[in-house]
This record gives sequence, C-alpha cells and structure tokens, in this order.
Amino acid sequence: MEYKKLGKILGKIMILEAILMLAPLTICFIYQESFIHVLAFLIPIIALTAIGFLLQKPKPERNNLYQKEGFALTAMVWIIMTLFGAIPFVINGDIPNYVDACFEMMSGFTTTGSSVITDITALSHSTLFWRSFSHWIGGMGILVFVLIFIPESDDGSSMHLLRAESPGPQVGKIVSKMKVTTRILYLIYLGMTALQIIILCCDPITDYTAMCNDLGAEAANAYRDDKVFHAFLTTFGCAGTGGFGFVPGSMEYFTPFAQYVVSVFLILFGCNFSLYYLLLIGKVRDVLRSEEFRCYFLIVGAAVGFVFLSLVGKIEAFPQIYNAEESFRHSLFQISSLMTTAGYTTTDYNVWPMLAKTTLIMVMFIGAMAGSTAGGIKVSRIVMAMKGAYINVRKLINPRYVPKEKFEGKTLEQKTINDVFAFITLYFFIFLAGIFLLSFDGVNGTVVQIASDAGNYEVKHGFFSNFSAVLTCISNVGPAFEAVGPYSSFAGYNDFSTVILTFLMMLGRLEILPVLILFNRRTWKKV
Amino acid sequence: MEYKKLGKILGKIMILEAILMLAPLTICFIYQESFIHVLAFLIPIIALTAIGFLLQKPKPERNNLYQKEGFALTAMVWIIMTLFGAIPFVINGDIPNYVDACFEMMSGFTTTGSSVITDITALSHSTLFWRSFSHWIGGMGILVFVLIFIPESDDGSSMHLLRAESPGPQVGKIVSKMKVTTRILYLIYLGMTALQIIILCCDPITDYTAMCNDLGAEAANAYRDDKVFHAFLTTFGCAGTGGFGFVPGSMEYFTPFAQYVVSVFLILFGCNFSLYYLLLIGKVRDVLRSEEFRCYFLIVGAAVGFVFLSLVGKIEAFPQIYNAEESFRHSLFQISSLMTTAGYTTTDYNVWPMLAKTTLIMVMFIGAMAGSTAGGIKVSRIVMAMKGAYINVRKLINPRYVPKEKFEGKTLEQKTINDVFAFITLYFFIFLAGIFLLSFDGVNGTVVQIASDAGNYEVKHGFFSNFSAVLTCISNVGPAFEAVGPYSSFAGYNDFSTVILTFLMMLGRLEILPVLILFNRRTWKKV
Repeated sequence: MEYKKLGKILGKIMILEAILMLAPLTICFIYQESFIHVLAFLIPIIALTAIGFLLQKPKPERNNLYQKEGFALTAMVWIIMTLFGAIPFVINGDIPNYVDACFEMMSGFTTTGSSVITDITALSHSTLFWRSFSHWIGGMGILVFVLIFIPESDDGSSMHLLRAESPGPQVGKIVSKMKVTTRILYLIYLGMTALQIIILCCDPITDYTAMCNDLGAEAANAYRDDKVFHAFLTTFGCAGTGGFGFVPGSMEYFTPFAQYVVSVFLILFGCNFSLYYLLLIGKVRDVLRSEEFRCYFLIVGAAVGFVFLSLVGKIEAFPQIYNAEESFRHSLFQISSLMTTAGYTTTDYNVWPMLAKTTLIMVMFIGAMAGSTAGGIKVSRIVMAMKGAYINVRKLINPRYVPKEKFEGKTLEQKTINDVFAFITLYFFIFLAGIFLLSFDGVNGTVVQIASDAGNYEVKHGFFSNFSAVLTCISNVGPAFEAVGPYSSFAGYNDFSTVILTFLMMLGRLEILPVLILFNRRTWKKV
Repeated sequence: MEYKKLGKILGKIMILEAILMLAPLTICFIYQESFIHVLAFLIPIIALTAIGFLLQKPKPERNNLYQKEGFALTAMVWIIMTLFGAIPFVINGDIPNYVDACFEMMSGFTTTGSSVITDITALSHSTLFWRSFSHWIGGMGILVFVLIFIPESDDGSSMHLLRAESPGPQVGKIVSKMKVTTRILYLIYLGMTALQIIILCCDPITDYTAMCNDLGAEAANAYRDDKVFHAFLTTFGCAGTGGFGFVPGSMEYFTPFAQYVVSVFLILFGCNFSLYYLLLIGKVRDVLRSEEFRCYFLIVGAAVGFVFLSLVGKIEAFPQIYNAEESFRHSLFQISSLMTTAGYTTTDYNVWPMLAKTTLIMVMFIGAMAGSTAGGIKVSRIVMAMKGAYINVRKLINPRYVPKEKFEGKTLEQKTINDVFAFITLYFFIFLAGIFLLSFDGVNGTVVQIASDAGNYEVKHGFFSNFSAVLTCISNVGPAFEAVGPYSSFAGYNDFSTVILTFLMMLGRLEILPVLILFNRRTWKKV
C-alpha cells in the first residue's frame, strides 16, 4: 500500500466534498436559515478543505495504483465521505446521534434512502437538500466523478477505480478512452436529470387539496411554494435511484401526473447507461437486442402485472380499496421504485396482499440493470446465473457438452459465470449474517404504531422487519416492511444494528469484494 | 434414455417398496386394526408387486447406465415411491386428500417431517408406523439400499446413482468397492438405530403425569403401553433425521432423559457416516482432524449458546419462563433437532425471543454434515464457500495469487468451489421462487389459532410463515414458524402450494440438479 498516494487521492476527494457542500450552504442562504444551519455546513467545509490540502503535501514514491489499492481506496472514499457528510446533521440538530447521522449519510451516498428521521416536517431545507443531493452524487459513483475533473496518470489506475465502483459484473467500455467514457456517461446523467426537472416543473407536483384535508392547511401551506425545490429533490432521488422523502408520506401527496413521471424516469434511470450512448449514436437495434434490456422490461412488466392482479383481483382479503387507475398507478410506481431500488412510495404497501408484497420483495432482490445507478443483484447477474445453471444441467446430461451459451452476443465465459455464482453466494451469506446480527436488538418484539394512508395500526417488530431491513439496505432500496415499512423509520434500531445496516449499504453499493478487501491485512502491507 | 433398463430398475424398487410395506401391515395385525386399515396397505402392496414384475419383462438393449440416466432415475424413484406410498393414507381415511397424502409421504421419504395432520391422536398405529418408517428408509437413500441387495453390473452405473442421491458435495469413497462401502454404511446405520432403541427402552419415554394433567387421563392412557412402539418411531425419525410426531406436542411430553437421548443421537446422526467407519478402524485422530467435523460441533456449540443466552438472558420481553435446566435442554434439543434437519420439538419455539428464533433459522439453512442423513446446505459447503470467498479476496489483492487452500487435507480445487457456489446460488433462487409461489395462496393473511405449551394465541399467516415453510421444506427440516410452527400444520395451504412444497422437499433431498435434469428434453431422448 502506497500510503502517500492514497492520501493524495483521498485529499482531493475531501476537497471535492467541500465544494459539493457549497450547494446546501447556498440553500441555507436562499431560505434564510439560522446561523447554526450555516455553521453546520461551514465547519465540515473548512475541515475537509484543510485536511484535503494537508494530504496533498507528501510526495508519493510511485504514481500508479495497484488493483488492491484501487479497490481499498474506493471503499475508504465512501467511508470518509460519509463520516464528514454526516457532521451537518449533528450540528444543526436534525439528527443529534452521530451514528444515526452516518446511517443517514451512507444511505444517501449509497442511494439507499433508508432513514432514521421520524418527523420529516421538522427538517430544514438545507438538510433536505443535502440528503437528496447525496443521492445524485452517489448515483454515478463519487470516484467516476473525480476521474473527469482530476487528471490522473492513465496507466490503468483509473480502470481499477472504475471497476471497483461500477455496479454490475463488468464494466462495459463504450469507447476506448476511459475519460471520454465517463464524460459521456455524466453528460447523459446530467441531461436526463435536467429533463426530469423541467417536466416536473410543468406540474404542481404535490396535491395541495389532499394535503390540506389530511395534514391541515398550515402544514400544507409550508409546501405550497417549494415546487421548484421539490422538482430538484425528486429528480436527485430518481437519478441516483435514492429515495429520501422530503414531504410527509414520501410521494403519497404527489399528483398522479408527478407519480407517473417519477415511475417512468425511475425505469429509465434503471437502464444501463451504455444503452443511451448506443441510442445517441443511432444504434437502436443494438439496444432492442440487448438481453439484459429485454429481461429488465419483462420483469418490470410481469411484476407490475402480478401486483396489479393482487390489488384488484381479490386473491385474498385486502382492506384498502383502490379504483382500477389507482391500482395500476400504485403497482407501476411501487415496482419501478423498488426494482430500481429507489424506494419512493405512494401508498402504504405494508397492508397489501401477500402476492403484492412478495413480488416487491423479489424485485428488491433482483434490482435493475448493471451499469445503472441502481442496487440489488442486477438483472444481468440473474440472467447469467440462470444460463450457468442451464449449462450445469446440460453437463450432467452429457459430460462432454461444450457450452456455447451467449450473453449480449458474446460467448459467456465460464469464469464470468463462476464470478456471478460467487457474488450471489456471498450476497446470500451476508444477507443471512445481517439478519442474525439484527436479532440481538432489543427492538425485536416491540410494538410500533403506524399512521399511513391505510389508517392507524400497530405492528410488531418481527422477523419480517429484520429480513426486509437487511434486504433494503444491502440492495440499496430504502423502505422495508412491517415495523420498518414506508410509513415508519429505522430510528427504532440501536446503535449496533445501525452500524450493521450502514455497513450493509456500503457492501451493497460497492458489490461486496471492494469492502471485504479492507479486512485482509495483506491489503495494508507496504509494497 | 434406455427405457427398458429404466423400467427394470424402477420395477425392482417397486417390489422393494411392497416388501417394506409389509412392516406397517404387520403393525395392523399387532394392534388389531380394522379391515380397512389392512386393505390400505394390501392394495398398494399388490399393485406395486404386479407392476414391478411386469416391468421386469422387457429385455433392455444395453445394460449399463449413463450418468444422465442415473440422475433421472434417482429423481423418478422418489416420485414413484411417494405416489404409491401415499395410497394407504387415502384408503384408511387418515389423509383423505391425495395431494396432502403425497406431501406427507414425500415429507417422510425426504426425511423432512412437515405434516398436514391437524390431529395426531386420530391416526392409526399402522399410519404412524409407516410415516416414521419412511424416514428411516429415506434416510440413507432408497437407491443405496437397493444397491446392496440387487446385483448390478459394476461398471460405474451404481456410482452415478450413489452420486445423485448422496447428500453433500462429494461422495467419499471409504473403501474402494462400492458395494462394500454401502454395506458398511448400512451396518453402522443399523447399529446406531438398534443402540438408540435399546437406550430409549430403558426409560418410560413419555411423562405420563404431565400428559394426564394437560390432556386428561383417557388420552394419556392411550399412550401408556406404547413404550416400545414409541422407541421405534422416535429412533426412525432420529436415524433419518425426519421428525414426524406421533404423540401430541411432538416430544413435549417426553421425559428429560428421553429428550437428552434424542438430542445426542440427532447430533450423532448429523455426522458424516464415513467418520464412524474411521472410528471403527481406530483412526480417531483423522476424525478429530476433520475440518467439517470441527466446524459442525463449533456451530452446534455456538448456536446452543446463543439460544440459551436468549432464553435465560432476557434480551427482550419473553413471555415463557424456563428454569436454567429447561432453558439448556430446550436450546440443545431445538438446535440439534433443527440443525440436523430432523424437526422434533419439545416446546413452542414460536414464542421465543428473536435471537433464539433467528439462530434456529440460521442452522436450518446450514444443515448438518455431508454424508449424513440430514438436509440443508451442509457444513462442508459452507466451509468451502467461505474458503472460496477468501481466495477471491486474495486474488483481488494480488492477481497472481495461486490458491493453496486445503479442505480435509486435500487441495481445494477451483472446480469444487465453483460447484459449491453454483449449488448455493441455485438453492437461493429456488428458495426465493418458492416464497413467491406460496404468496398466491388464499391462506395468506388468515388468522390461525395455536394451542401450545406457551398457551393459546393467534397468529396471522404472514411472510414469515411462507419464508419458513419454504426453508423447512427445501432443507428437509419439518416444522416452520408463525402459522406453520411446531404446534400447527401445513394443512392450511391449498393444493397448489402443497405440490410446490412437496417438490421443494424433493429438490432439497436430492440436492437440486438430479431433479432439474428431469425438465430437459434431452434427458428423454433415446440414445
């Protein structure tokens, strides 16, 4: 490990975070927030800048990065960004417990959207902005972002960073030059973000009347003039497939138009960004031929179908009655939100029938496409694992069978399949370990009061709560089920569980191995 | 596929099943059961014998078996054994629905022990015997059994059968000759069975006084004179790690002595049988050096510790109070029962604290040692997967790293690791698919009344019920949690779900691939 080089890059990233924090600081001034709110961002900005510059001083002995250093660095960047990013919440008092604040920040950067906030109305504009903005930053990867602006030696170091941080089994090289690739991807990201903000601004976004009825005129008024602000925050969450809420009830009070817009953009942000590049250069056929693309839309379609069927089909007793349009809208919204691992909600799916809930659980495992901003196992891995299983069956039938399976037009290498199997096995093990560790928490067995659009009810914090909490964190979704459902929060968990869940989010976002590498002492040996 | 050869072997197995059914028929006479009970076994015996002999007629064109034929045959044997084995239950009226009867029989042969019976006291002695006897038959594998008695050409055909049916990633060849191997294994199996029966007969087994208090003198009296009968049934379930109950409350009314005996024997039956051979020939050191053996006992010890801690430590609000000895006994019993995937119970673990319940879930996933009669993923696979993950991390740190990891003294081949990863991935996928398919059932959301040693209470059939039902079936455990817990049954599920769960038991027992092979049309092509 070349520590000086490591420090240099970490320092640059800290300065970058300081620059990014200027955005919420500006929000402080726009909304004329009190001095403590300004200070909340000013202090970490100064600290980050100072440490960042100090770390630039020592001259590294070698300038390139080995693979292990690239991976370890990636994991450390996320930890450091989180540790500093959480400071404002503690200073301005919005999340006084630092462990909780780190959970919230990690949830932001990893585009999870799980929250410990119990009363969203109590948060300042700057806090709300910083939370959602972190989704947008985390979405495309902090390091990829860095690669564009900071000139690095182009001898493969950057490739290691990109490989460690990109979601999905392989980094698709769109064009041969790395920098060009990342720039194009960022332009697409920016373009789609801008487009969604513009479209959302054509709509009141929140349904003022419904809000008045449920929350009272005073509360509703507070949100009336924030249309543009909301358009930004909504879009940050969509682009990063994050999902932090910023008005009561997540998107329950959004107009049907806004809900449809969000659904569609979520599905789009769940696509592999390389496909947009292919679209831009006119290769529409290649996009339509992509196996992952087809499977992704097939799964979305089937899942929406199952949830819709479950909501209108009366497969079992179901207390909440939607009309056909509402059933369809909620099905589409919830599937697109949970499958792309965003986690926005429009209704309390906790009270949905089992088929609908189980379908949601399934898409939370699957996740969206590789090379998108989403979490989860990823559609491409599922497809490859299926093909791998098929090959194994064929080999049993005929031991001399030579696999000719293809994926995305290329022959599927046995090594790739093995890596996919290894990843899914690790994902499964970590998933089980997470559930086990959460079972130590005293919150288990306690009764939680839920007030949602389905009315007020009580749930016990049971196995399903822990199961879905771990799933939602490792897949970077956001809300879970039962006691940690969409109208509840993660505030009930103790500090130990909160740390576990924070760690799971990072494992999920960086796809396990880059994080595990931190725990091997060989990583830290000076070479 | 050489159909005539296939038919010949299937025919022999059908005749074998007819012979095995003479045992419950004898029980009919011993307990002087009515004519319909005699008929219940007589009809399938005659049918099996007739079809079995008919299938011997055609002369096969080739006498050896290809690998695919061996695997497909194995899967078919289990299906046919179940389809015929279920007939008595329908005829004597103990399980009138044939789908349920097949579930019960598959649960027996796969040594699962999940039951659709709601009132165990209503069953005849012959039914009780046939259920538990099927555990004992299924334990060591029906085909392995056949291999001993029926001379087959020794050109590798039998190896294919053994490979398909043996639990665990590899078939350990104890001695070079296959037949000798299986004979030794069966002798050990028989010896341990006999030993447990003898030990149990030294004890009253059931606690008559406690039974009188809870169930009334009349009900308790019915069980008073069945001591030897109970010793046999208990042991059948232990040896096969099955777990069908035969008195109310599974083993709740067993004396502490009997409960300890069962715990110890379960742990012993969860060991790889090759280890006993090593013990017999005096290689005690080799046994103690076995990595799987050490891990197995480590996990058992740790799990008992966690459950014990949870029960006495009052980690959370816990309604049921045990004294220290009871806490220890129930911890030991429940861990040994669920980890070896037997599924006997001594108390209602449904009301246990979350840590205890989650520990039980974990050991249900893990299962016992390969080469035992237990289900689950198996300790050896867990160990190999961990080592595989470690190798992957090392390779990330240094891409030129050449793995030198060993397992059981031999170098761990990359191919073996890949197979383990592939298996666990498939296990995980099938697990999720099972949960999804059960979510269609109308039983979801219904309220179930439970009457157990923890009192009467209501539970809703929720996600945890389906989750644990799938787990218990694919791991061949038996009882699940929540609405399908130890004091409830699988009777609530509709026929579709019952078929799914039956199929999952077979997938679990045959370790997936031999069953999947049935669904490829190439398996059925005439070569």
